[in-house]
Amino acid sequence: METSRSPILLTPGPLTTSDRTRAAMLRDWGSWDGDFNAITTRVRQQILRIVHGEATHECVPLQGSGTFSVEAAIGTVVPRDGHVLVPNNGAYCQRIARICKVLGRKLTTIDYPEDRQVQAADVDRALAADPTITHVALVHCETGTGVLNPLHDVAMVAARHGRGLIVDAMSSFGALEIDARKTPFDAVVAASGKCLEGVPGMGFVIVRRSTLETCEGNSASLAMDLYDQWVYMGKTTQWRFTPPTHVVAALDEAIAQYVEEGGLPARGARYARNCQALIAGLAELGFRTYLDPSIQAPIIVTFHAPEDPAYDFKTFYNEVKKRGYILYPGKLTQVETFRVGCMGHFGEAGIPGAVAAVADTLEAMGIRRVRTAAVA
Amino acid sequence: METSRSPILLTPGPLTTSDRTRAAMLRDWGSWDGDFNAITTRVRQQILRIVHGEATHECVPLQGSGTFSVEAAIGTVVPRDGHVLVPNNGAYCQRIARICKVLGRKLTTIDYPEDRQVQAADVDRALAADPTITHVALVHCETGTGVLNPLHDVAMVAARHGRGLIVDAMSSFGALEIDARKTPFDAVVAASGKCLEGVPGMGFVIVRRSTLETCEGNSASLAMDLYDQWVYMGKTTQWRFTPPTHVVAALDEAIAQYVEEGGLPARGARYARNCQALIAGLAELGFRTYLDPSIQAPIIVTFHAPEDPAYDFKTFYNEVKKRGYILYPGKLTQVETFRVGCMGHFGEAGIPGAVAAVADTLEAMGIRRVRTAAVA
Repeated sequence: METSRSPILLTPGPLTTSDRTRAAMLRDWGSWDGDFNAITTRVRQQILRIVHGEATHECVPLQGSGTFSVEAAIGTVVPRDGHVLVPNNGAYCQRIARICKVLGRKLTTIDYPEDRQVQAADVDRALAADPTITHVALVHCETGTGVLNPLHDVAMVAARHGRGLIVDAMSSFGALEIDARKTPFDAVVAASGKCLEGVPGMGFVIVRRSTLETCEGNSASLAMDLYDQWVYMGKTTQWRFTPPTHVVAALDEAIAQYVEEGGLPARGARYARNCQALIAGLAELGFRTYLDPSIQAPIIVTFHAPEDPAYDFKTFYNEVKKRGYILYPGKLTQVETFRVGCMGHFGEAGIPGAVAAVADTLEAMGIRRVRTAAVA
Repeated sequence: METSRSPILLTPGPLTTSDRTRAAMLRDWGSWDGDFNAITTRVRQQILRIVHGEATHECVPLQGSGTFSVEAAIGTVVPRDGHVLVPNNGAYCQRIARICKVLGRKLTTIDYPEDRQVQAADVDRALAADPTITHVALVHCETGTGVLNPLHDVAMVAARHGRGLIVDAMSSFGALEIDARKTPFDAVVAASGKCLEGVPGMGFVIVRRSTLETCEGNSASLAMDLYDQWVYMGKTTQWRFTPPTHVVAALDEAIAQYVEEGGLPARGARYARNCQALIAGLAELGFRTYLDPSIQAPIIVTFHAPEDPAYDFKTFYNEVKKRGYILYPGKLTQVETFRVGCMGHFGEAGIPGAVAAVADTLEAMGIRRVRTAAVA
């Protein structure tokens, strides 16, 4: 195992995974073989269980990154003449909007500043005003900034209006509650390499069964047709096209550890502790978060970059990396920021260690003024 | 390493990979990190080198299975009003035809029986007869049966007519020669988990640079837009969306071993030896190949199933598996067959071992008559 030499990844994913998860990739599997198909079946069942969707939903896995699954969900669930409302408060909302355009689905957005939460009341008004809107596409936790959007409230609004709901839960799934028994949705999309702490290479879409049954022929893609994937898997227990066998086996092993840890409450609590320790530790060094704490999801934290002229992100990144931690650049155009992830398999010393690495880096770079003047 | 307990995969992929290739997955990589991006860059360069395409072509990797890359190649390289000619002698030709239909590209096929090679003269006639055809899409080695199609001849015909050529080289790339300096093509598509002996989870498309430069806006998919992926990679050295980092690292390590082994000539020769040993060994047991040896690629061999009433594929498969080898079902509708792959990282004893496992299985199943009456 080379783990000890690898830096800890404090990023929006790929994440630091456990030795046990990576060791699951040390075996080759035949994609037609029953032993492998049993893994696929188990992974699908376990994922459904996380959202309590066994009675109502289906889990359809898909090769590729999370964005492939988001595009597949839009392309499969929204009919070609559908109309998608995207409440937009960040980069991943914008990506959904771009997908709608490229796929030729009609699009309406509600645009927010990136430091604001989506408001269910705005969605309510938009749906009331435009009965041609067939679906709402909401990002649960906006990975671009770390904002938590009010999924349950938006879902209730969409349901009251009789519209579909597609949720990009990429960076929340498995850590923040999504309960299909309480929160109505047509599709929830996530991926292997986020809060479930698998390795990247596949996504999955949890689709309401009664919705999925109506989706034949919607997709203008063969590879990303979730209806076709679902029907084929139902008949054969196999993936339609070569699965990323090692990634699937790693996810299976990661989910086993997830269950052992205590499932969603335990995973969410661990990330919340990481998040608190991170924000408190960096605050002591003078860093402040981009978001108000009330709308901060405990997954990804965006920090304002130091105002000191000695700061540049590339050097900062490299110096922190030398000290064993990998951070992530900001994704905002207006404000200089960087991001730190709270997800991944690292011990309780991970966050204090990262804070110490940042402190050392500030000293090494000669950065004295971290806090911007406006707030000081 | 669990290798010793895993059966050897004699399938069209996923394959048996080396311990060294799988061990490359024991580290987590940040997808924004320079160390990882250096791996991506090296993989792209090495793949280009295999086809001698450094001066003329670009290697664009894509998340997902090989079919994702085939669809991406058709969707990106063929304009929306393009017209694709598919010489069709098998399941993967039919898949390309289906992709063209789903993507809304005009399609013409030349249909052959599955035990016949595509004829360049037929392509010549079809292109002469229909000037609206913009592209030929050829499967190099038809994985469904194992037929080798005459890539170079078809490429010369397409070039003479000034039409584009897209090659599905999924199961030939790296073992059978494709030389961009001699054989003109717009796109050659393959994947990580075939003759390069990586693990499955990504494909790649080698596109002629001058073609790629004209492809902006062709794709009706965001995730599978190779033009967009290429432009972004050119600017950043990063993948547009989360890469399957462990799969990429494994492919890098697999390619290093490919080069050490002696590259394409050595890899091709090893598979040819495997293929000869397999056909000769199973012939001694009475099995005959579905294809005439003159058109058999040394990658996948289709065998007629035993005629004996005691035979059924499922039992045969399980019995051979118990003895340490995984075979593959046939993909023909008219004739009962099974397939055996010649690819993968297993020692020279692999094929004789598989032949012995089949011999034992025949005895265990009480199969006496292997050879069909017509040929006896």
